[in-house]
Amino acid sequence: MNNKTKEFLEKWHRIVLEKDMDMLREIVADDVTLYSPVVFKPKKSKDETLFVLSNVIQVFENFAYHREFADGNNLALEFSANIGEKSCKGIDLIEINDSGKLVNIEVFIRPVQGLLALGEAMNKRFEEAGIPVGKKLPSA
Amino acid sequence: MNNKTKEFLEKWHRIVLEKDMDMLREIVADDVTLYSPVVFKPKKSKDETLFVLSNVIQVFENFAYHREFADGNNLALEFSANIGEKSCKGIDLIEINDSGKLVNIEVFIRPVQGLLALGEAMNKRFEEAGIPVGKKLPSA
Repeated sequence: MNNKTKEFLEKWHRIVLEKDMDMLREIVADDVTLYSPVVFKPKKSKDETLFVLSNVIQVFENFAYHREFADGNNLALEFSANIGEKSCKGIDLIEINDSGKLVNIEVFIRPVQGLLALGEAMNKRFEEAGIPVGKKLPSA
Repeated sequence: MNNKTKEFLEKWHRIVLEKDMDMLREIVADDVTLYSPVVFKPKKSKDETLFVLSNVIQVFENFAYHREFADGNNLALEFSANIGEKSCKGIDLIEINDSGKLVNIEVFIRPVQGLLALGEAMNKRFEEAGIPVGKKLPSA
């Protein structure tokens, strides 16, 4: 793991553990792209990415990282979490730019019931924030 | 990447590319565990794992691997594929044992629509093979 990636990962862990949203804003690049586990189309907006990531961090309970892989500016991080009564596993697939900022994040969740529970919890938060939600998900 | 992991990965690529099911049987350990993207509970059966993997290889179209990460005996492989008209991305999270055989495989798929399409296609194959399928998935 190169130093830039190592430094990013230390900050990332702190953000997730301490829910430090100021640090999150600092390490996300202005041209970040977010690939959600729920919909195919990526979000190319720093504000929306920050909204999603900060809310996901709050929705997940008992969050823990497990295997972590690095290759140059890329990371693959395995995690487990609960969403309400559903258990899930996930992967954060991350790319940082040459300034060490998050430029791509793609999130994968299994199984179906955990993914649908996350989608439902996030849709609720989008609605509460007055952000339009896309088409309705099948019920979990 | 250690030599054992490198050798495994070369065989794995050949299996996926050439749909070589004899080689698949060779490189899967007898005590393999499969964590499906659809259901939480793992399958601890070599026969069932072989059935699932060989059918998944047939269900996916335009399959391609992208970023590949290795750490000791562990691999994280990013892929893209089509299932019918749905596009999806995925991760194979793989662990091999000290004999270089597949002992753990956990598969992640995004987005929801791609995952549900895979679940539906696989349920159909389970039914055709006379293998009981668990509870019905929400429709894609």
